[in-house]
Amino acid sequence: MEILRAAFDAESFRAHGHRLIDQLADYLATALRGGPLPVLPKMDPAAQNAALPASFPENPSGEPAEIFARVLAGSNHLHHPRYVGHQVTAPLPLAALCDLVDALLNNGMAVYEMGPVATVMEHHLVRWMCSRLGWGDRAGGVFTSGGSAGNLTALLAARQAKAGFDVWEAGNAGGPPLAVLVSEQAHYCIRRAVQIMGWGSAGVVSVPTDARFRMRADALPDAWRSAESEGRKIIAVVASACSTATGSFDPLEAIADFCHAHDLWLHVDGAHGASAALSDKYRPLLAGIERADSVVWDAHKMLLMPALATAVLFREGRRSHEAFAQEASYLFSAPDGGAPWYDIGQRTLECTKRMIALKLYVALSVYGTRLFADYVTASFDLAKRFAARLRQAPDFELAVEPEANIVCFRYTPGGDGDLDALQQRVRDRLLAEGTFYLVQTRLPAGVFLRTTLINALTGDDDLAALLEAIRVAGADAQKPKAKG
Amino acid sequence: MEILRAAFDAESFRAHGHRLIDQLADYLATALRGGPLPVLPKMDPAAQNAALPASFPENPSGEPAEIFARVLAGSNHLHHPRYVGHQVTAPLPLAALCDLVDALLNNGMAVYEMGPVATVMEHHLVRWMCSRLGWGDRAGGVFTSGGSAGNLTALLAARQAKAGFDVWEAGNAGGPPLAVLVSEQAHYCIRRAVQIMGWGSAGVVSVPTDARFRMRADALPDAWRSAESEGRKIIAVVASACSTATGSFDPLEAIADFCHAHDLWLHVDGAHGASAALSDKYRPLLAGIERADSVVWDAHKMLLMPALATAVLFREGRRSHEAFAQEASYLFSAPDGGAPWYDIGQRTLECTKRMIALKLYVALSVYGTRLFADYVTASFDLAKRFAARLRQAPDFELAVEPEANIVCFRYTPGGDGDLDALQQRVRDRLLAEGTFYLVQTRLPAGVFLRTTLINALTGDDDLAALLEAIRVAGADAQKPKAKG
Repeated sequence: MEILRAAFDAESFRAHGHRLIDQLADYLATALRGGPLPVLPKMDPAAQNAALPASFPENPSGEPAEIFARVLAGSNHLHHPRYVGHQVTAPLPLAALCDLVDALLNNGMAVYEMGPVATVMEHHLVRWMCSRLGWGDRAGGVFTSGGSAGNLTALLAARQAKAGFDVWEAGNAGGPPLAVLVSEQAHYCIRRAVQIMGWGSAGVVSVPTDARFRMRADALPDAWRSAESEGRKIIAVVASACSTATGSFDPLEAIADFCHAHDLWLHVDGAHGASAALSDKYRPLLAGIERADSVVWDAHKMLLMPALATAVLFREGRRSHEAFAQEASYLFSAPDGGAPWYDIGQRTLECTKRMIALKLYVALSVYGTRLFADYVTASFDLAKRFAARLRQAPDFELAVEPEANIVCFRYTPGGDGDLDALQQRVRDRLLAEGTFYLVQTRLPAGVFLRTTLINALTGDDDLAALLEAIRVAGADAQKPKAKG
Repeated sequence: MEILRAAFDAESFRAHGHRLIDQLADYLATALRGGPLPVLPKMDPAAQNAALPASFPENPSGEPAEIFARVLAGSNHLHHPRYVGHQVTAPLPLAALCDLVDALLNNGMAVYEMGPVATVMEHHLVRWMCSRLGWGDRAGGVFTSGGSAGNLTALLAARQAKAGFDVWEAGNAGGPPLAVLVSEQAHYCIRRAVQIMGWGSAGVVSVPTDARFRMRADALPDAWRSAESEGRKIIAVVASACSTATGSFDPLEAIADFCHAHDLWLHVDGAHGASAALSDKYRPLLAGIERADSVVWDAHKMLLMPALATAVLFREGRRSHEAFAQEASYLFSAPDGGAPWYDIGQRTLECTKRMIALKLYVALSVYGTRLFADYVTASFDLAKRFAARLRQAPDFELAVEPEANIVCFRYTPGGDGDLDALQQRVRDRLLAEGTFYLVQTRLPAGVFLRTTLINALTGDDDLAALLEAIRVAGADAQKPKAKG
């Protein structure tokens, strides 16, 4: 057991820890100043696969620092200001330190005893987030591991509240087939949640969007009537705030009116955009969210936290207990008929989870709320300036005026080439150079380049450089045969 | 934006980081030597709630180190050798450092580009774990955030493979009501998964257990016939390896025979016990696991990792793509008809996830496999010695001979008192003193104290001291009125 004692030695941890902090601080300094290092290292899956050992030694061998160096070199560098890719944030370094505390303590959170401090931090944070949404004392919720789990959790609550029969106990067979109304621009995890619940593909009734990719509230009555006439019971509308592809905010007031008229649950997937609630300037995008029954809000998107940190919030906090009615039978002992606020394991589909709230609680306590408000405002502002730049450029086409910090556009240099293929080739080249990381998406008009301005240190200069880099890559891409 | 730049400053991270490492190393040294600090600090939810600020300042204020000190003091101290509570491990300190790397890099993993190195580490680890289970090259799987999500993922695959109709597309209404056969000792997340899928409470058909809390394979035919005669289609048997309450291993060979005869999916919830595959001595407990269709294996239980690190493994790797057939339509481009191995986001209910495999890959590389094998063997051995001690003590009753490192027992000093209440009072007193952390469980014979010997540094002396402490607490507990 000597090997085990050595592995748990506190002084060994101290030595490895100090070395790692220096390694990470050096890495961070390099990444933040934009290199020299590629945003995304160039190594395809097969090469990466071959470069890393596929098996493990029987006895101790190797130094953590060497493997860490390889990990740092081989990962996507989100702190590089030219990372403008997926909606995963370049986290606050302090929040990463909180995750170290979390990991070492490893309090499992399913019951209060397995995470006393973190449970209370979660409780306070949930209440604070609910108040930002305009909700009162009856609101509540829980943190869970990711937006997909969060949206599923909210839909389970909607199912139990609005199906008209006890789905948890009787199953889907206990009543008519159920469905939700969802914008065709919603994140795929909504459809996945519906199909996990056994409603099939018909459980998602698509609602068309307008030219700016927002749900058309005026199309809700037809969608509802059509589904109901086929014997489907609509229980909820799922609105996006904002949508994944283009960052479009569905019109929550009009949708809430419709839900009210038809006694439907209103769930808002605010994974990305609920953070606008912190910005005085952009709060109006969420007008009506206070009428939602449930909201999902990811701290690992626009609150600068490492994944996974998702809040599932309910205007009526007791809903989150009812979603998992199974446990409620021996738990409903609190005065209000709900479970005690500190038994959070009864409100999620998780049992053990991390001390999820710790990092956001610490960051808000240390940096204050203004940092987060400023960050949201600045990144949305930056997107508007980037859009203006694109509109003024004759060789670029803006897909849609951005409401959030997601900007889709394409390179349109003229000529009769295949525009879709051109965007893909341009992106491939930028990634091969390692100068930028951006993604692409398919919209009705074709393939567009897609950027999320989620790195707090990305600036106008970086985006001007991006357009220049695309022009160069595009010119190269248009003459592949001449070079072959 | 000065405040944002300051928050991202690499030198500030370095300073905070070094300070935190010393803070954690000092804490770890204290916890490992057993104090002076209580295993679980005494502070009820209301007091803890009042002790922590419920709101946040607008502007920067406060030092991380102060909050961290409060978190360290107020959490459950899993590294204390007298932590013998829930199945959450005292993690390897190096693994916690890996989580820091993970958190800072924050690679989101849904697609290869968002986590190149971590994707390959996951690929290698999955193959290594599959080979430990006795599976060949066709095996595969994915890491996900926790055992509950893992078991749900496996059951979704079982549903799609064995329902006889396309549940993903048609929903539950497309065929007969479905059900699984589950031991009455299975973890509650199995029932929860079934009810999430909309099968209702009848979707779980309980199979009785023997005197050692193992599923009675001879009871499977009756359970199967009874459910089928009521029109339920049984698609799977869920076996526990091991069970939560008592650590009992269901007889996998006999269950596999039954599944083979009836064309059922065999899912093994090996969250805790699959790690026995690494121990030459205890590998026989898992005999037959190589015939399972799917296995859930938590690295945050018996592989010394911080939560959450769950492997969902399939004997036929393609099953894990079919579970989420929705995405498969535009993904099935690989030569074998499956999705590429590196698109792991298509195999889980998650989209963004952490670089889950990093810590286990690094720990296996640095410490070698023997450390993990030795740890499993030693902790199972320790439980057997503890059981022998309990059997020899006239004032204790062992609930059942332990197969794993979970030992349930009760204090039976004689007299005609209420034994259930006595166990609860004893536990309350030990927790109030802070000398031990253990839990309790209800078995058919009544309430038992429950210990999981999961801290690698817990020794025989600690367990001898536990029995002495229980005797003292029990004597006190039996005369509450005299003290009032």
